[in-house]
Amino acid sequence: MSSAAIEQHKAKASAWFEYLRDRICETCEMIEREFTGPPRELSVGRFEQQSWTRAGDAVDGGGGVISIMRGRVFEKIGVNVSTVHGCFSPEFAREIEGAENDPRFWASGISLVAHPRNPHVPTVHLNTRFLVTTRAWFGGGTDLTPMLPAREDARDFHAALKHACDRHHPDYHARYSKWCDEYFFLPHRSEPRGAGGIFFDQLASGDWEADFAFTREVGLAFLDIYPQIVRRRMNEPWTEDERAQQRVRRGRYVEFNLLHDRGTRFGLKTGGNVEAILMSLPPEASWP
Amino acid sequence: MSSAAIEQHKAKASAWFEYLRDRICETCEMIEREFTGPPRELSVGRFEQQSWTRAGDAVDGGGGVISIMRGRVFEKIGVNVSTVHGCFSPEFAREIEGAENDPRFWASGISLVAHPRNPHVPTVHLNTRFLVTTRAWFGGGTDLTPMLPAREDARDFHAALKHACDRHHPDYHARYSKWCDEYFFLPHRSEPRGAGGIFFDQLASGDWEADFAFTREVGLAFLDIYPQIVRRRMNEPWTEDERAQQRVRRGRYVEFNLLHDRGTRFGLKTGGNVEAILMSLPPEASWP
Repeated sequence: MSSAAIEQHKAKASAWFEYLRDRICETCEMIEREFTGPPRELSVGRFEQQSWTRAGDAVDGGGGVISIMRGRVFEKIGVNVSTVHGCFSPEFAREIEGAENDPRFWASGISLVAHPRNPHVPTVHLNTRFLVTTRAWFGGGTDLTPMLPAREDARDFHAALKHACDRHHPDYHARYSKWCDEYFFLPHRSEPRGAGGIFFDQLASGDWEADFAFTREVGLAFLDIYPQIVRRRMNEPWTEDERAQQRVRRGRYVEFNLLHDRGTRFGLKTGGNVEAILMSLPPEASWP
Repeated sequence: MSSAAIEQHKAKASAWFEYLRDRICETCEMIEREFTGPPRELSVGRFEQQSWTRAGDAVDGGGGVISIMRGRVFEKIGVNVSTVHGCFSPEFAREIEGAENDPRFWASGISLVAHPRNPHVPTVHLNTRFLVTTRAWFGGGTDLTPMLPAREDARDFHAALKHACDRHHPDYHARYSKWCDEYFFLPHRSEPRGAGGIFFDQLASGDWEADFAFTREVGLAFLDIYPQIVRRRMNEPWTEDERAQQRVRRGRYVEFNLLHDRGTRFGLKTGGNVEAILMSLPPEASWP
């Protein structure tokens, strides 16, 4: 592939991640304003943005923007869009497709974790990215983590993702939902992190436009279904006991992210921005 | 060394760890009863013990006892004494002294983490252990993590450990306090976990009795100085803002234990008891 074509792909991918971020932030701010349920005394949340740059030299560079809102529906929601380039460490390059002999990489992506205040509203994670080494591929996914036994939330989340997948390939949903269940699993506790979703990586079918379209579809499916779930739960009353259960589930979320998550590991190993990487950690967690 | 001598060393070491556990638990329960300061409404803590056994077969076995107290001074304190044996995984055996060609191991130790409720009382960690592969050695240490800027607490803690070290070897304190500072460090944040202490490993000087005596001395120094620090701080009043600062510091403690701590990694990799390993995590933490 010509280097001009690759540059165009990079530009299109990173522009999409920023566009998606803006739509998600708008929607979440709208939800903050719509909220009527308890607690009433908190003020409406607004996203605050913070830019960061990667320690730069001839090889390494880039940066990103963290958008964080601490609101009444969203106790803490962080969205990070970053576009970075550099060289993997020799040890890390061995683990990355296409970096075995040339450790240079370029990566752009959006990642989001929402920690709603109401324990009836599930926590959610979304991440999609475009990576370029001597090869180029998309990866990402989204998964739902109900804090209390979920009713229809998980079912509707899965249905929305299945619909999105089916528009692109008959095998995608079965394959990527299984991958998600395998990935978001805490081996030390033999328990899943949540209710699952989809997870994909190394997506390079040979048709870049199709892969990009699928990646966009995942973002749009998230943008459609998660706000629906939040809106139908956010005004439900909750008890102190349910809040305590939520803090314990959030503790498990911390365990997964720090012990097992490859994205966290990737970020910390490539000198990513610590605040951006650990933005996913919950505002409060407990190990009683 | 004769196998009878090794068996005697194992028996003496594990008996000591149990003895030390009992003295520590007694002292902490006494402190719970002495407490007069706020909050008054909580009830006096008592340790509860829970035995666990390692999934056993011809090779693997052993187990331990977790002692946990949830009290008014000690919001959560866990002490685990375990004596286990088995085979390291091939990958892990490469990292362990004396296990390169024979992956069998035997290990006994005590580990403790205290999370006091009052943010003026520092968090503390103690761990000493005796490990046997084709070689045998002691390791461990203790370190203090003040939640608020420490005044004389860190100074007195260091002085007690220096005194203990100096009774055994003129170089120990300099060497082991440096090792502690290097070990209890969060590279991703470029910050120490706390105020330090001592950390040692691979202690096999050739004089087993001397090494065992030093290991006991570390435990006794802890048993002398930490209760002094707790008693002088535990009745000091504190504010909600100081409590919030404590939760953030505790979040850093979680980050260290899950991202970096070798003891946690060792435990999870060798199929240790999850509750015992993660007992170190704080009752409440926050990433605001």
